[in-house]
Amino acid sequence: MTLKVFGHTSPDTDSTGSPLIWAWYLSEIRNQPAQAKLLGTPNTEASFVLKTWGFDQPEIIADVTADDSCVVVDTNNPAELPAGINQANVVQIIDHHKLTGGLETRGPIDITIKPLACTATIMHNLMGPNADKMPDPIKGLMLSCILSDTLEFRSPTTTQQDRDLAEQLAGELGIDLSAYAAEMFAAKSDVSAFSDGELIRMDSKEYAVDGTKFRVSVLETTAPQIVLDRKDSLMASLGTVAAEDGVDQVLLFVIDILNEEATLFVPNALVKDVAEKSFGAQVAGDLVVLPGVMSRKKQIIPSLKV
Amino acid sequence: MTLKVFGHTSPDTDSTGSPLIWAWYLSEIRNQPAQAKLLGTPNTEASFVLKTWGFDQPEIIADVTADDSCVVVDTNNPAELPAGINQANVVQIIDHHKLTGGLETRGPIDITIKPLACTATIMHNLMGPNADKMPDPIKGLMLSCILSDTLEFRSPTTTQQDRDLAEQLAGELGIDLSAYAAEMFAAKSDVSAFSDGELIRMDSKEYAVDGTKFRVSVLETTAPQIVLDRKDSLMASLGTVAAEDGVDQVLLFVIDILNEEATLFVPNALVKDVAEKSFGAQVAGDLVVLPGVMSRKKQIIPSLKV
Repeated sequence: MTLKVFGHTSPDTDSTGSPLIWAWYLSEIRNQPAQAKLLGTPNTEASFVLKTWGFDQPEIIADVTADDSCVVVDTNNPAELPAGINQANVVQIIDHHKLTGGLETRGPIDITIKPLACTATIMHNLMGPNADKMPDPIKGLMLSCILSDTLEFRSPTTTQQDRDLAEQLAGELGIDLSAYAAEMFAAKSDVSAFSDGELIRMDSKEYAVDGTKFRVSVLETTAPQIVLDRKDSLMASLGTVAAEDGVDQVLLFVIDILNEEATLFVPNALVKDVAEKSFGAQVAGDLVVLPGVMSRKKQIIPSLKV
Repeated sequence: MTLKVFGHTSPDTDSTGSPLIWAWYLSEIRNQPAQAKLLGTPNTEASFVLKTWGFDQPEIIADVTADDSCVVVDTNNPAELPAGINQANVVQIIDHHKLTGGLETRGPIDITIKPLACTATIMHNLMGPNADKMPDPIKGLMLSCILSDTLEFRSPTTTQQDRDLAEQLAGELGIDLSAYAAEMFAAKSDVSAFSDGELIRMDSKEYAVDGTKFRVSVLETTAPQIVLDRKDSLMASLGTVAAEDGVDQVLLFVIDILNEEATLFVPNALVKDVAEKSFGAQVAGDLVVLPGVMSRKKQIIPSLKV
């Protein structure tokens, strides 16, 4: 039986590349047939990475059933997984996020969660000496996942292990790490083709704080002005998206990768309160800049207060 | 800050020994001060093991708070952990049970769950070459945990890795594995000092099936007759315990380690139904023998139907 390997429903580079890496490992090294799948359309950076390293876009699946055996990577949050996930036969989880609760497995399975910046780094550890057998396109995916999740080592989630591995892979591939990262980030910043709703949902996770349901959306970009030029229509769409998705409030953070700061959209008093209580910010208008805030996982989510 | 390392609220040998093993590893090898704690009174086998290898009984703690940093071993089920667990700072989880859902962590942490028979075996893997530094009492605990959780390799949860490690440790310690296992199981079978309620709660886990809340209690013994001689009063106590603990039904399985079978107490039509639907059993009286059933984790819980 072929395992389905997938990440979360907002496929960024790690959630697109890691399933391909692990499906390669399972199929080629462990003789366990496996196929990478996607739970949504990859973002522009992930599409660029697939094209660069010669991969077709994996099939997008809408749900899983009790007949599916699955490996879940880069999430353990059922809100970011198909509706049928707790009926499916989940055989392995590899992740680097907080334990969310809610995901159940039929029996004891293999779970590895580590506080590293990138799922692909954990996979490299799990492969042990077999990592030497990775062909160049798999190495390229792994490097891309690390550069993406660490924002080229700028994110506070970056560990020495992520950094050392990325530099090693770039060396083995003979490519200029910084030039390649700049190409990836430029691809991510090209958001002109997306509607406001698509932008807001592109890299977005639901989290509840004391009963208030948030959709926490981030847009990591080297060109924040492209997004901020659309402020008025994005601001208006925050309420529409919240209503459509059944959450109380969308929090939209535009992450300026190069200047290492976030700009939070402040459409109402609730978000003003959140900004002040969570980040000690002084909010004047409908935007507030949060210096040094780059990571939803390490900085935004753990700080959220209502 | 000293980490508190603990297992679940019904401390058997693995849940008593593994915290001591991991506290040794963290303190002595990783220079991270750590202390083993207990969440309840260890069973007679675990007490025998502590005494045999020269350990004082770890302190029993009632709860944890937001000020505590903890390592949780041998469970990931909040129903088996202190009420304050989701407020505490859980920094690591090492376990071999199904993912239950419900446990949350503040941020990404280190989680290793493997489908091995014993938590201590996973710890041996995680130690890598440092496992060679284990002093004899720690090796003795590790051996005891494996023999207990595998019922000396009779349980279907047993993997080759558990078995190989136990045989290696017995060799290094120069002890007769089978003779030592027999002593452990005799200690576990000596249940005369316990009240019916204590017996029923001694090795017990709560699980819900389609909204019905069960307390699934097992008594592993080499002398099942000692328990079955108390059938009438135990049968009467099942309802009392269920009412006191807020579950719908207690399922009491007496596991005959040597004959590799379980005897399930059948106090009413609900349990008769469960026995028939879950195990294909034909129930005549108020007890039913389930040949080959030894493991709650691998055989009982995954089969439960109402």
